[in-house]
Amino acid sequence: MRELPRVNSELLAVALRAFLAEELRTTGLGFYVVGLSGGLDSAVSAVLAAGAVGADRVRAVAIPGPTSSQESLDHARLVATAFAIPLEVVDLAGAADALAATLGARSDRIRFGNLMARLRMVTLFDRARALPGLVLGTSNKSEVLLGYSTLFGDGASAVNPLGDLWKTQIYALGEQLGIPAPLLAKAPTADLWPGQTDAGELGFDYRDADPILYWHHEQGLQQDELVAAGFPARLVENVLRAYRRNRFKWRPTVVARVSASAVNVDRILPRNPEG
Amino acid sequence: MRELPRVNSELLAVALRAFLAEELRTTGLGFYVVGLSGGLDSAVSAVLAAGAVGADRVRAVAIPGPTSSQESLDHARLVATAFAIPLEVVDLAGAADALAATLGARSDRIRFGNLMARLRMVTLFDRARALPGLVLGTSNKSEVLLGYSTLFGDGASAVNPLGDLWKTQIYALGEQLGIPAPLLAKAPTADLWPGQTDAGELGFDYRDADPILYWHHEQGLQQDELVAAGFPARLVENVLRAYRRNRFKWRPTVVARVSASAVNVDRILPRNPEG
Repeated sequence: MRELPRVNSELLAVALRAFLAEELRTTGLGFYVVGLSGGLDSAVSAVLAAGAVGADRVRAVAIPGPTSSQESLDHARLVATAFAIPLEVVDLAGAADALAATLGARSDRIRFGNLMARLRMVTLFDRARALPGLVLGTSNKSEVLLGYSTLFGDGASAVNPLGDLWKTQIYALGEQLGIPAPLLAKAPTADLWPGQTDAGELGFDYRDADPILYWHHEQGLQQDELVAAGFPARLVENVLRAYRRNRFKWRPTVVARVSASAVNVDRILPRNPEG
Repeated sequence: MRELPRVNSELLAVALRAFLAEELRTTGLGFYVVGLSGGLDSAVSAVLAAGAVGADRVRAVAIPGPTSSQESLDHARLVATAFAIPLEVVDLAGAADALAATLGARSDRIRFGNLMARLRMVTLFDRARALPGLVLGTSNKSEVLLGYSTLFGDGASAVNPLGDLWKTQIYALGEQLGIPAPLLAKAPTADLWPGQTDAGELGFDYRDADPILYWHHEQGLQQDELVAAGFPARLVENVLRAYRRNRFKWRPTVVARVSASAVNVDRILPRNPEG
């Protein structure tokens, strides 16, 4: 059976902290703003940032909505307390219900889930503007490739240390960083309705999907080759179906190119060149 | 004096319609959803889409907020009527006030403006999900390079025909397409407070800025060379200051790269490959 390559989590943490310290320094801004969902990814992002620039230069925001569980908020508090990161709680239930009523989106849980994810983005960028600071990203590569995120919602950030990491690697990084055990043990969830889990919706766990995604996306093994290599045929089919169907989320906006210097297409420049 | 290169607006319109037709076709979705602000850019985008896929496959949404002018809504209706594009009006005033109160952002007009721009994005993507369809972009290259837009707000879309066009080119395209005269004649505005104009905030008009941006960004002329070429020194300084200060908006999210296949960095794949 082909596996995901092992990474040295200690070295990875050092590299990601250096990245976060440098990105904040070149902007000249004071803070990272991060939404703590109570899940593992946002905890790992926040703790990396605290290690990079100091916990007093990280502002965590927990943003419960009408469908969030109490456990999620408890876990956000657990991480913030353990790493001395200041935590603000913003309750969006009233504003979310007002917007959902205007749009007629309350009864459709997918539309309401997208709406909540985007209102959280609005909240984090508003806080970042007020401080001023940078919104810290929490999306990982497994989610991005499988499309399990809301465009311009949870996927939106200014600086993301986790976007090129497989979820499996984030588990290892979380252990390395000393993330509280309940967050490492629980099933990933978007927390959009009671009992929801990523695995329940996707039909598989990230730990099972990651090696398939790696060998397909990075190493070019096709569906039949993955099965021949020992991955269960049905699992391969389900993972690749999600991978193919959500490809549009990898590249959120397609711009018609009419010049030789389309921004971000023909020229991908550093964000904060010095001098 | 160096000028912006002329373009053939008729050919440009043909190319952009072909682009929009193809992008919708490959997704298999039925509609383009576009926010009509009452301004020129969104009118040009909507009319291009109507020409590409038929006006009955475009859904326009006018989204007044508490600060919008009546004229903006009138101009949105004028375009929709002239080109037989179905128009829905969604009044976000109540929802925006509820959210602004929760965030404490009502008294800061920049924060409130960002909030409104992002709530319009939420509205358009909600409509796109419900139909289903694709959100049509309306940002142009002048705005993007000068940073005169809200990240994950008016800059967010699925398909943008105007992102590589200078504002000066959009005026020419608007005339070519027969956009109603009042939209071509009025000063560009974000409509976030009475009397606001882009030129009032930026300190210069797009028609004056565009050739400077072109000769600097695409042709590499430096500040002193631009002045030597005949552009007014103060104008050059103001344009390049906005250009430099807002560079972070060209690349909204920086992802730490830890593999050889970071999504959208090492591999920029087509969004909707067929087969």
